[in-house]
Amino acid sequence: MPRPTTALLSRPRILTAALELVDTTGTFTMPRLAARLSVSTSSLYHHVPGGREEVVEGLRGLLCEGAMPAGTEPGEGWREFAGRWARGYRAAMAAHPRVVPLLTAQTVSDPATLAGYEALARVLHADGFADEDLLHAVTVLDCLVLGSALDAGAPVDVWADAGDPASALSRAIAATRVQPGDRSQRSFEIGLEALLDGLARSRAPGRPARPARGGAGGRRVRTPGPP
Amino acid sequence: MPRPTTALLSRPRILTAALELVDTTGTFTMPRLAARLSVSTSSLYHHVPGGREEVVEGLRGLLCEGAMPAGTEPGEGWREFAGRWARGYRAAMAAHPRVVPLLTAQTVSDPATLAGYEALARVLHADGFADEDLLHAVTVLDCLVLGSALDAGAPVDVWADAGDPASALSRAIAATRVQPGDRSQRSFEIGLEALLDGLARSRAPGRPARPARGGAGGRRVRTPGPP
Repeated sequence: MPRPTTALLSRPRILTAALELVDTTGTFTMPRLAARLSVSTSSLYHHVPGGREEVVEGLRGLLCEGAMPAGTEPGEGWREFAGRWARGYRAAMAAHPRVVPLLTAQTVSDPATLAGYEALARVLHADGFADEDLLHAVTVLDCLVLGSALDAGAPVDVWADAGDPASALSRAIAATRVQPGDRSQRSFEIGLEALLDGLARSRAPGRPARPARGGAGGRRVRTPGPP
Repeated sequence: MPRPTTALLSRPRILTAALELVDTTGTFTMPRLAARLSVSTSSLYHHVPGGREEVVEGLRGLLCEGAMPAGTEPGEGWREFAGRWARGYRAAMAAHPRVVPLLTAQTVSDPATLAGYEALARVLHADGFADEDLLHAVTVLDCLVLGSALDAGAPVDVWADAGDPASALSRAIAATRVQPGDRSQRSFEIGLEALLDGLARSRAPGRPARPARGGAGGRRVRTPGPP
């Protein structure tokens, strides 16, 4: 007679339980995941034969699918698209910062996430980024997003602060504390705009950066098709 | 009769063992650390009464001390100093990427690290950054450094790549693979320069950014004193 809990086991239930474990403890093992679901480890493998690595890729898909935009909107340049891409991705990661180190520790193979990176790569390519510059631009956006997601998961007091008026850091912390809203989110916005500004400028050395029609790149980009 | 291994126990030995454990397994517990050192958990607490949190702060100090510069060199502006600060910090973190999530999960209280942040805050303040802008600038540099350290610890193949010539991401990966040197390091350099460019520009809206004597900030900054 099959155990009812095993019969109800599904990939979505496994991923939800794994996400809860990582949010709470920072990691998971297959035996601990099985225990949380009150099933045997072997019944877990029936649904995720690739084991822990497959579960981590499943978590990546769970968080990234729908978070990264699939293509440009009419008139949107690479800069606006990259901003929208980074904001969506960061929102997904900042909600589950403890998942980040698990994701960066293995190769991205989740199809929905790969499609999200491909969409960004196509928009950059269509706007004239050379191949290697393109990969570095994608990587630095990735670094800022993931660093900011860790920052979102940091304690409210990032630095131990004795409120020393002679400390420039203390004064800056005090000034920031009185501002409403999410400190980490504000820092991310400032960093993202600065980074996109800098990337835009690095493409045109000697030329003052200025907004152009249809986005900073000034050219209409093709909407990427499905992957 | 005291056990010889306990007699040899010291804070530096404990930190070295903890760093090895984190580099290898991604985390540590006090009992596992004690087992690695062949001592009792209680003898560990004799040297680090604050337990795991104190050990993590010790790891922060071990990595950051000397990595973050203490003050400006003659004629160095905020931009050059911030670049040097971020490069030193990133090199320290990229050598031990699995330590990063442990560090971001708790408040910075290690004195050497706090002094490193204070040095950056003083240089930004001396060059006219307003308090809140200053904290955001420090935070975004932090995010880029930590995200890049995770990137440095990622697998050689960041994305599963079938070498599809129709994929913009695949073509960019292929172009980057033939370049010599450290891909993650090159991305970091491009991101850091772009971010510093963008931060410099955000301070002077409407004014084209240009290099000035003594650094991008154009003004000589005071060398911060000891913290």
